[in-house]
Amino acid sequence: MDSSPIRKAFELARTIENPINLSIGQPHFPCPPNIIEAMNRAAIDGKTAYTLTAGIPELKEAMAEKYQIQNGIEYAKPDRILVTSGISSALFLLFNALVNPGDDCLVVSPYFLMYPSMLKFYGANLLTVDESFTSEELSVFSSKKLKLIIYSNPSNPTGKVLSKEQLRGLANLAEKTGAYLISDEIYELFDYDKQFYSIGKEYEKTITLTGFSKTYNMTGLRLATILADEVVIKTLTTLQQYTVVCAPSITQWAGIEALKTDMSSYIQDYREKRDFVYDSLKAHYEIQKSGGAFYFFFKVKDTDEEFLQKAVKKKLILVPGYIFSPSKHHMRLSFATDWDNLKRGMKALVELASE
Amino acid sequence: MDSSPIRKAFELARTIENPINLSIGQPHFPCPPNIIEAMNRAAIDGKTAYTLTAGIPELKEAMAEKYQIQNGIEYAKPDRILVTSGISSALFLLFNALVNPGDDCLVVSPYFLMYPSMLKFYGANLLTVDESFTSEELSVFSSKKLKLIIYSNPSNPTGKVLSKEQLRGLANLAEKTGAYLISDEIYELFDYDKQFYSIGKEYEKTITLTGFSKTYNMTGLRLATILADEVVIKTLTTLQQYTVVCAPSITQWAGIEALKTDMSSYIQDYREKRDFVYDSLKAHYEIQKSGGAFYFFFKVKDTDEEFLQKAVKKKLILVPGYIFSPSKHHMRLSFATDWDNLKRGMKALVELASE
Repeated sequence: MDSSPIRKAFELARTIENPINLSIGQPHFPCPPNIIEAMNRAAIDGKTAYTLTAGIPELKEAMAEKYQIQNGIEYAKPDRILVTSGISSALFLLFNALVNPGDDCLVVSPYFLMYPSMLKFYGANLLTVDESFTSEELSVFSSKKLKLIIYSNPSNPTGKVLSKEQLRGLANLAEKTGAYLISDEIYELFDYDKQFYSIGKEYEKTITLTGFSKTYNMTGLRLATILADEVVIKTLTTLQQYTVVCAPSITQWAGIEALKTDMSSYIQDYREKRDFVYDSLKAHYEIQKSGGAFYFFFKVKDTDEEFLQKAVKKKLILVPGYIFSPSKHHMRLSFATDWDNLKRGMKALVELASE
Repeated sequence: MDSSPIRKAFELARTIENPINLSIGQPHFPCPPNIIEAMNRAAIDGKTAYTLTAGIPELKEAMAEKYQIQNGIEYAKPDRILVTSGISSALFLLFNALVNPGDDCLVVSPYFLMYPSMLKFYGANLLTVDESFTSEELSVFSSKKLKLIIYSNPSNPTGKVLSKEQLRGLANLAEKTGAYLISDEIYELFDYDKQFYSIGKEYEKTITLTGFSKTYNMTGLRLATILADEVVIKTLTTLQQYTVVCAPSITQWAGIEALKTDMSSYIQDYREKRDFVYDSLKAHYEIQKSGGAFYFFFKVKDTDEEFLQKAVKKKLILVPGYIFSPSKHHMRLSFATDWDNLKRGMKALVELASE
């Protein structure tokens, strides 16, 4: 997995005094204290033993309710849910179970870097379509035998929220080609213009991935869920028996509390930051307004690596875009940071544009 | 994985009022409170983000020291250690990285049921040798090209602690055949007669697995470590990036505290229970004195399934031996339970022997 630019960014940040680090892929706020309290309570109550492989019934029930009420997915029920050790574990289970060498897999681009690297690991043949796709652009794939279609919505690294029409196009393509449709919705709550839509609501064969890591800043606690039909869930559960056995017990209890947590003030803060970044940069860079997650993916004249070198001279750290897309002229910027840092970052970027 | 008899045992236990459940594969005491406190403190201190893939340096350093002092493994150092989400995760990483279809793999029998089921999953060709093996019995394998040799020491399901001579025999065989020697030492502290020996101390190519789950009753917290040479550790770390990314952050902090915890009173309690079980059953069953872990594996005249049916009529639940060995005439008994339960169990077993 070519995460070396992200590692490099970390290392760079260490060497710079008071860096403007806009490379971080997780919230800057701490995990809300009620979630920590619930987790600690579970530990004190002795919930330290293995759970059922598919997860504790209490969390699966809470997730079924969440999928029904929040995502409008009426068929959601505990037997269709598998609790995993984070989204990456969920991806691993899915790709390991579904992908055979030579399988055509369609990835919406720019993409979360784990999709292509994990798919290649399993020998998949990678096809990509740009996230701006129209129905016509999708139709070129409809004669193929696709094994799966995957995207993150809202997107890491672009913040793009796919439109209902685009999602329907992907669902139709999945139905036509027999592909599994994998909707990675880990950033769903970071939806600034209320455009996010779970295609699982209308396409029952969707495999919906929901993560706790990003929303509640608990990337290290390893918790996500997969909503899929019972046959898929059964297969993945068997596979999980051979890997981590179960998601961490206390983290699962934390998950129940997380679902009850009002995150709206955090989201509002990020919405304002989203607006601030866009307003600061739109006159200086070719940039799309991000609709979700906490990223912008904007174009630069230099190559991304050259741009990064110049940025670092101003103490600014971003992630070069080539690991997320075929382009070598984009940078990923995360606005999951405090105001002071973000203002310093915008000042540096405006200066860089005029150099 | 044929864990159905263990699942059945769980289900049986639910249907019986006040069952004598001697089927449980984890300690009956709670995770010591200082470990819980350390974990909760880490959570309160905001240690909820991803850690480095290979684990937090603090735990790797503490483990290196533990391997050196407790196991006498002088070459142990942080770069040779990978922190994983439990032993099963460690096995998955190892087998996924090392085993190709058709590879000959030697498993000491009776075995932890995950070894053969996971090895078969990766297409390995399974060879077994009984745990009572002599050097001569091992020599039949020395002309083979073995991919790996694996055992649990002390053993689940028999409680057998392999002798230094036996371990040297396995190390010699590994050296001759080019096999990876995998020493699963998850039960190392449950060593009642001070016979346990880490072969890694003298055979540097050993892959030593150390788990926290059983010793501290934290099976649900998912924590183990692998000690191996740096090339193996690097490969497994890359693979872990594609699966769970990292072991749960707070659990890693709990691990540091666990290493400081004096478990001798717990071990002494299990030693007395080990003696009690042996003294109660030796006149009635063909039984070897267990030296470690918290199991006995004893012979019955009926088939294991028939014996279980009769036992259940006395409210007694054990695990049939066929899932751990080729024999259909053994039962696994766990003495990880309280005295009252254990006494009731011995009474039932003595009665069953004379029926």
